[in-house]
Amino acid sequence: MAYQSPKGTRDFFPPDLAALQHVEAAWRNASINAGFDEIEGPTFEHLNLYTVKSGDGIVNELFSFKRAGGDIDYALRPEFTPTLARMAAAKGRSLTLPTKWFGIPSHFRAERPQRGRLREFKQWNVDLLGVDNPSADAEVIATAIRALANLGLTHDDVIVRISHRDVVVSMLEKSGISTDKMQIALTLLDKREKMAPDVFAGKIKEHGFDLASFTQFDGETVVDHEELNSLQEELIAWGISEWCKFDFNIVRGLAYYTGIVFEIHESSGNERAIAGGGRYDKLIEMFGGPSMPAVGFGMGDVVLSLVLRDKGLLGDGSEFLPRPDVFVISAGGDADKQLAPTVATLRQAGLHARMTYRATRNVGKLLTEAAKTNTRFTVILGEELEQGNVVIKDMDSGDQSEIALCDIISHIKK
Amino acid sequence: MAYQSPKGTRDFFPPDLAALQHVEAAWRNASINAGFDEIEGPTFEHLNLYTVKSGDGIVNELFSFKRAGGDIDYALRPEFTPTLARMAAAKGRSLTLPTKWFGIPSHFRAERPQRGRLREFKQWNVDLLGVDNPSADAEVIATAIRALANLGLTHDDVIVRISHRDVVVSMLEKSGISTDKMQIALTLLDKREKMAPDVFAGKIKEHGFDLASFTQFDGETVVDHEELNSLQEELIAWGISEWCKFDFNIVRGLAYYTGIVFEIHESSGNERAIAGGGRYDKLIEMFGGPSMPAVGFGMGDVVLSLVLRDKGLLGDGSEFLPRPDVFVISAGGDADKQLAPTVATLRQAGLHARMTYRATRNVGKLLTEAAKTNTRFTVILGEELEQGNVVIKDMDSGDQSEIALCDIISHIKK
Repeated sequence: MAYQSPKGTRDFFPPDLAALQHVEAAWRNASINAGFDEIEGPTFEHLNLYTVKSGDGIVNELFSFKRAGGDIDYALRPEFTPTLARMAAAKGRSLTLPTKWFGIPSHFRAERPQRGRLREFKQWNVDLLGVDNPSADAEVIATAIRALANLGLTHDDVIVRISHRDVVVSMLEKSGISTDKMQIALTLLDKREKMAPDVFAGKIKEHGFDLASFTQFDGETVVDHEELNSLQEELIAWGISEWCKFDFNIVRGLAYYTGIVFEIHESSGNERAIAGGGRYDKLIEMFGGPSMPAVGFGMGDVVLSLVLRDKGLLGDGSEFLPRPDVFVISAGGDADKQLAPTVATLRQAGLHARMTYRATRNVGKLLTEAAKTNTRFTVILGEELEQGNVVIKDMDSGDQSEIALCDIISHIKK
Repeated sequence: MAYQSPKGTRDFFPPDLAALQHVEAAWRNASINAGFDEIEGPTFEHLNLYTVKSGDGIVNELFSFKRAGGDIDYALRPEFTPTLARMAAAKGRSLTLPTKWFGIPSHFRAERPQRGRLREFKQWNVDLLGVDNPSADAEVIATAIRALANLGLTHDDVIVRISHRDVVVSMLEKSGISTDKMQIALTLLDKREKMAPDVFAGKIKEHGFDLASFTQFDGETVVDHEELNSLQEELIAWGISEWCKFDFNIVRGLAYYTGIVFEIHESSGNERAIAGGGRYDKLIEMFGGPSMPAVGFGMGDVVLSLVLRDKGLLGDGSEFLPRPDVFVISAGGDADKQLAPTVATLRQAGLHARMTYRATRNVGKLLTEAAKTNTRFTVILGEELEQGNVVIKDMDSGDQSEIALCDIISHIKK
């Protein structure tokens, strides 16, 4: 077992990592273009950063530990928002508002691994602090959509389901759920789509709820809510209304959301949520910072990659491996001595230069090896070196020519 | 304390992360140009991946933990080589040789934080598997040097100190150190430079060693060793002999090194090692893989950043923040309604587009806000919108002109 990766974690061989980096590049690009600045925090935090907000119950979902001989409890971060809130609070009143931050950290959950849910995963976090009108919510959602569109997804493939905590609570109240049972009802509504119908039926019976309290969210719900009306206008202004719908089945599990909440799903509803977020206007203050409105979301790599692969938008990752500019081989004899110096010079000039390590000097075999790397050019060091020349082959066109050794770089760069 | 980052870890605000990413980009670029493929593994591994090689003594240097209710021991990875060896072994005979891998993972050490040594840090790992001649060692060292040169360092700033385990052991033996005390002597030699002279004197007295056994490595040592002679030729072939010297004070602490070892230091010797590596020809086999020669190194971000800052080659990181293409402001009135749609269109076209969130419509103040972001252009939405036009200002030249709303993108991209 020492020789396997821990359950729920992944080994990223080069194509696997190239696929992840393709997704991360789309995330980073959309964030930077939207004016968000990248941040990062520690991989582990003090355990009470998480318990202060969620209570001790969360400890079972965390990987927590002490240093040998130490007495401070730490935990691998399960999400980024507490770190972000801590960092914003640390800056205090010196924080320029609005602050627009994003990050692509690793997160950890000590749960049973399932499809779309691993023990270690990457998550894109985007947060806009200091703006309290729904234009900020729309801008944040537009940033998520821009990344998905850059990855090739359309509004036929994915849907942003938008809700509001106040609307859901008010509808649940009207259907007869009392204030003291509201949190239980919200949690059940949040988990309903992931439960088998009979399990859900058992749960509501246990708490004395009516099924109708929950099924009321299934159809088209028309609400007249000032913030949502304003958000609707902003979604149009930001050009993303086609990607979005109001859907009051959405409540988000985390306790810190205060208003608008949303999730992005694959349209058919086949997978877990691709992303989830919303307003958390009280959180920065809770960590000792100034009172500050805030809206943000997280998007993990696991579900998104499943959706992209399902739509044919992501292969095994080998399609994204960097292409070599040049592969250098030697036809033997004195040319062997020129292999390392030639490759060193090409790399120094900023070229991606590979070489053969094989003992054979069979040029045909070496050209086959070069072709396997998908190199743009192959340079053959041979007898022509006596005249200071080499043979260079364009691997796409098949054209082969003799050029001066000192002209390789300009030949490739042009 | 919940509101501080854990001791020995770092919060990366945008400039801090930009500085780290500048270093990482130099590492990644040098690796890719040298034909290494990027990999990544889990942030934590089974604890026995580390104890199998180093014994239980290492546990105190690790952050180790169990899942709540679980019985498997995990540890945050303190270095990447065991993960790499495990991954190579997992591929077994299907691994194409040579395999050239690099990675830039986070690592963790449960030690007291010191200058240049934190509890969490990034480390560039470069490994070449399957080549048993010193050309591979030279190529790996050349890759490290290429990254340092790309960051602005020269061979006046840093030195690669190269040694060989066999040579050191043989010299220690000749000076009278017995086989049973060899590991203690090697460990002391490795730590000597980091110890105060009187502490070192006490240690050697305790073990009955002569000071001369250790001071013999201080001067110029001439050795006639086949592998090192061959390496010397390869360092010349790879064009890096000016950056390197043989120095038998270097032994490297880790037990798995089998031959050539090296460290890269700031020339004056003021900081800890910038990088360390060497041959580990037995390790892949130890993790269940085929017998395979291997050479590699690790370079952390902490000492390197101290050296770069000391040489004036790295600022606070703000110099590397992405520059906005355009900042959009509104002079008020109906123009406000065009702010979001205009910014959305610019971002959709792949531009880095920012906007004001301020309520003021004082164009002078808004231009000052735009200038603070270092934007290339500012677009002013105002009365000209009635004719379908906007004012665009080139922030470098100060030139201002009126163009059609639909021409903003082509104006900026040209």
